[in-house]
Amino acid sequence: MANKAQVLYEFIAEAGNNELSVREGETITIINQNVGGGWIEAQNSNGDVGLVPEDYIEVNSSAAPSAQQTQATIGSYDAHSSEPAHTQGTNGSDPWSSSAWTGNNSPPGNWDYGGQQQTPAFQQQGSLDDDEWDDESDDGRSAGGYSQAEDGGATQRGGTSHPSMKISLNKFPFSKTPNPEVYLLGKLPNKGKERLSIFMGEVGPVWLYPQTPLDCIVADPKKGTKMYGLKSYIEYQITPSTTNRAVNHRYKHFDWLYERLLEKFGSAIPIPCLPDKQITGRFDDDFIKIRMERLQGWMSRMCRHPVVCESEVFQLFVNYKDERDWKVGKRKAEKDETMGVMIFSTIEPEAPDLDPIEVEQKCDMYSRFTKSMDDGVKDLLNVGHLHWKRCTGPLQKEYQKIGKAFQNLSNVFTTSGYTGETTLTEALTATGRTYEEIAEIVASQPKQDLHFLLETNSEYKGLLGCFPDTIGVHKAAIEKWKEADRLVAMNKINHQDKLTMAKRLSTMSYSLQAEMNHFHSNRIYDYNRVMRLYLEQQVKFYETIADKLRQALGQYADL
Amino acid sequence: MANKAQVLYEFIAEAGNNELSVREGETITIINQNVGGGWIEAQNSNGDVGLVPEDYIEVNSSAAPSAQQTQATIGSYDAHSSEPAHTQGTNGSDPWSSSAWTGNNSPPGNWDYGGQQQTPAFQQQGSLDDDEWDDESDDGRSAGGYSQAEDGGATQRGGTSHPSMKISLNKFPFSKTPNPEVYLLGKLPNKGKERLSIFMGEVGPVWLYPQTPLDCIVADPKKGTKMYGLKSYIEYQITPSTTNRAVNHRYKHFDWLYERLLEKFGSAIPIPCLPDKQITGRFDDDFIKIRMERLQGWMSRMCRHPVVCESEVFQLFVNYKDERDWKVGKRKAEKDETMGVMIFSTIEPEAPDLDPIEVEQKCDMYSRFTKSMDDGVKDLLNVGHLHWKRCTGPLQKEYQKIGKAFQNLSNVFTTSGYTGETTLTEALTATGRTYEEIAEIVASQPKQDLHFLLETNSEYKGLLGCFPDTIGVHKAAIEKWKEADRLVAMNKINHQDKLTMAKRLSTMSYSLQAEMNHFHSNRIYDYNRVMRLYLEQQVKFYETIADKLRQALGQYADL
Repeated sequence: MANKAQVLYEFIAEAGNNELSVREGETITIINQNVGGGWIEAQNSNGDVGLVPEDYIEVNSSAAPSAQQTQATIGSYDAHSSEPAHTQGTNGSDPWSSSAWTGNNSPPGNWDYGGQQQTPAFQQQGSLDDDEWDDESDDGRSAGGYSQAEDGGATQRGGTSHPSMKISLNKFPFSKTPNPEVYLLGKLPNKGKERLSIFMGEVGPVWLYPQTPLDCIVADPKKGTKMYGLKSYIEYQITPSTTNRAVNHRYKHFDWLYERLLEKFGSAIPIPCLPDKQITGRFDDDFIKIRMERLQGWMSRMCRHPVVCESEVFQLFVNYKDERDWKVGKRKAEKDETMGVMIFSTIEPEAPDLDPIEVEQKCDMYSRFTKSMDDGVKDLLNVGHLHWKRCTGPLQKEYQKIGKAFQNLSNVFTTSGYTGETTLTEALTATGRTYEEIAEIVASQPKQDLHFLLETNSEYKGLLGCFPDTIGVHKAAIEKWKEADRLVAMNKINHQDKLTMAKRLSTMSYSLQAEMNHFHSNRIYDYNRVMRLYLEQQVKFYETIADKLRQALGQYADL
Repeated sequence: MANKAQVLYEFIAEAGNNELSVREGETITIINQNVGGGWIEAQNSNGDVGLVPEDYIEVNSSAAPSAQQTQATIGSYDAHSSEPAHTQGTNGSDPWSSSAWTGNNSPPGNWDYGGQQQTPAFQQQGSLDDDEWDDESDDGRSAGGYSQAEDGGATQRGGTSHPSMKISLNKFPFSKTPNPEVYLLGKLPNKGKERLSIFMGEVGPVWLYPQTPLDCIVADPKKGTKMYGLKSYIEYQITPSTTNRAVNHRYKHFDWLYERLLEKFGSAIPIPCLPDKQITGRFDDDFIKIRMERLQGWMSRMCRHPVVCESEVFQLFVNYKDERDWKVGKRKAEKDETMGVMIFSTIEPEAPDLDPIEVEQKCDMYSRFTKSMDDGVKDLLNVGHLHWKRCTGPLQKEYQKIGKAFQNLSNVFTTSGYTGETTLTEALTATGRTYEEIAEIVASQPKQDLHFLLETNSEYKGLLGCFPDTIGVHKAAIEKWKEADRLVAMNKINHQDKLTMAKRLSTMSYSLQAEMNHFHSNRIYDYNRVMRLYLEQQVKFYETIADKLRQALGQYADL
């Protein structure tokens, strides 16, 4: 249901700023509460859409999220006008607050992360057409990513409903699997060839990393058509470093891969969602560029993950030989039964079993850490977003005005008719031009540095958003183990079952530890890299300006 | 009469910003329309005073100046909170638009210039008490500077009326002198010893400059009291470079000097008004400091003027030996009759007479130039003012937030429990602190550079504001000369009178040219100096930030 809001104070839109004028007392419909910077996107009764200051309106209490939540969900950064605004809905629930998730059929809500729509972890797209998706859009919306199962019913999400969306509620192969009981107490399938190794490294339990690291290049987006040119889509070229042989994929193929990875590894490994599924302007050059950059980031992260990169489905995606190979592999992947919590059955840690108390302590620590980091990352995104807006907006204009003011004065001085004016007027004109140049430098700088800082943090925001689901499975397992004594007393399980539970809980904990250690090492690498890049560019930025001003200074007469 | 305004839109004051909350439809009293940056100072019916956005109100049409004028009169810069806001009135008339002023008794209005109240040129303070001013305030308001003669009546100016003001309407020794006829056609007094020499220099007619340039230092403001401590005032020490012997003066003495210089030289030399006459907080350290700085600027400019610095009254001011000497000199100066247009009678240009046509062309050129420069200076003041506000407001806060965000993230990272985190967290903390330092540097920078740029432009704004009056006398003389043929035909003057007029007009023109050349040479010197200073500081500013960021960058691990 769309949120309505009352306008508290009259607000007059500034031309060219995508703002919406509103009158005191008017009722408006909130379209997007997450644009950030103290703005919301709203529609008035005439159907006009635009930005309105958050403080000028009061969201009707029945539907109003708390101020804190509003704050927390700010994230997508559309600071630069050439980047498409992310206008996705959020259901406003806070995954961090659901401290334990005990395996019922109501998955915790998910939320918007830096413009990336987190598809509920235990909800899967139904492969309506096994052979090919014949939907009309290339943006993944048809994959049911916007629908959410809740108590068996379906709720349309966050105001982005569209009659042509196909919502697949008929197949929820995952809907039982999040209950860790299946793994903790069930009879495990015969061991196949799939093995996930964990060994003790310097930092604790770690995944086995492949000998040859995989990376890939996402490049060369090409517009393709089908249905005699009626439908068009963008195809990207993916070249893995191992084979150096390019394969082509459309966004929906990425989305398919994401769904497979999520259902297979989601209980053990947070699978970051894909870059946002933007509808409007999806053939826009800037949009294609930023989507490709983000797909590259996503693929690189997947390539760097020792478990994901070695998985059959991922190898299929980057290495398929031909259409036939792809289709056969696709069908096989969709029938893979080692998924959900059963992924833990493939893990064999080479380490002594852990005490469940220790397991719980570690789990709580990870939960706290990822929650805190999520807050920190959002904070940085918010302020970065504001800074971007300032640089490309008021600050650029101001330096332009300063430049113009100096040039104006210089122009006036040339009309004085006084001799010996030239040195000053030329220097003043040069100064004015320098400030105009500075205006352009200031406005384009965020693309040189802030962009990467925000992209990395956006990526981490997306990744961190997957942790509540992944950690939730572990917490549920711990809760289940705590019930063990009672279940033994009730004769529902025997003592051996309890020992098995503890052992399997230990395996799960090793998996989580290995994953966290992977996360930490990547995090340190990524932040070190992006901060270096940011600061290098910032130094260059200030030095360039200093140089330009020094040149202008050189034109004035010595005193 | 105070301007009233209707509130168009509700405005909620932001705490700590000197803003005033207003309701739609409310009537408020405008106190100061010239605070700049799109704000006006207003008072509501409860007597609360504060800033309200210009766009939110509609000035009652009878008293409303045009938007352009409002724009043009923005000027006083109170960007930094430690500087007192200038809250002076303006009557909103535009002196530049009165293209010719034909010497009647209604002088064109004057207006606010960068915080300097231009006292009407042809209106003089009555020396009610010949011996000493015993008024209660030290700010010059009692000197009648806010009253204006218009058609023989008096109008209270710009909303700053005060019942305790003494308005002296009884003595207007100047009220006849602006008419250049007295000089053009009158019998000139016997030549006294007073001589203003003009000779032909490289750039054209120039004043004779003194062999030893005079300068003085205004320093050491001391609080004094009188009337058994009931009244207090600030006394400044003035030390002229010629004698190196300090004399003491209160602000009102400066004001007295200003009035003397204005009445004596105002027709030939634009006498810039004194720094604004601020009432509130006049014993505040910051106020005393800025007033002293501006008095210094004013004194230096007067010292640099070859005619002013050599005048008896100015020499008295900087060189009086004792109280008796001062009082005698003061009385003598007040009785000086060579003032107004009669100052031209003391001028003897060593050059051939000019054709009145040429005189008019030059006069028009000066008029255009000073008008254009006035616009340019105001433009620069406006944008500088905005920039100052940005640096000390949103920009400082933003860099602080960026700094905090990096430090937050660093704090979170230290809780990871992962080994090998230290280099990153220390580097991140250092980066955060660096941005906090940058915030302080950004906020304090305007005091290092923009301050001087704005002060110089404010000074020029004040100076340029005197030109319409000075040039007006010349234009009136030209108009009078144009009537000469008609007057000859009507037998009101004879042919010889006409020749005398042309000769005296030529003298006036030489005087104006000498003054303009003095102005130009000072302008080139001043702008060259202040631009160098500004750019030097700007370069240093950007270099300092680059250095600090480079240091932070050095703390990250090499990749």
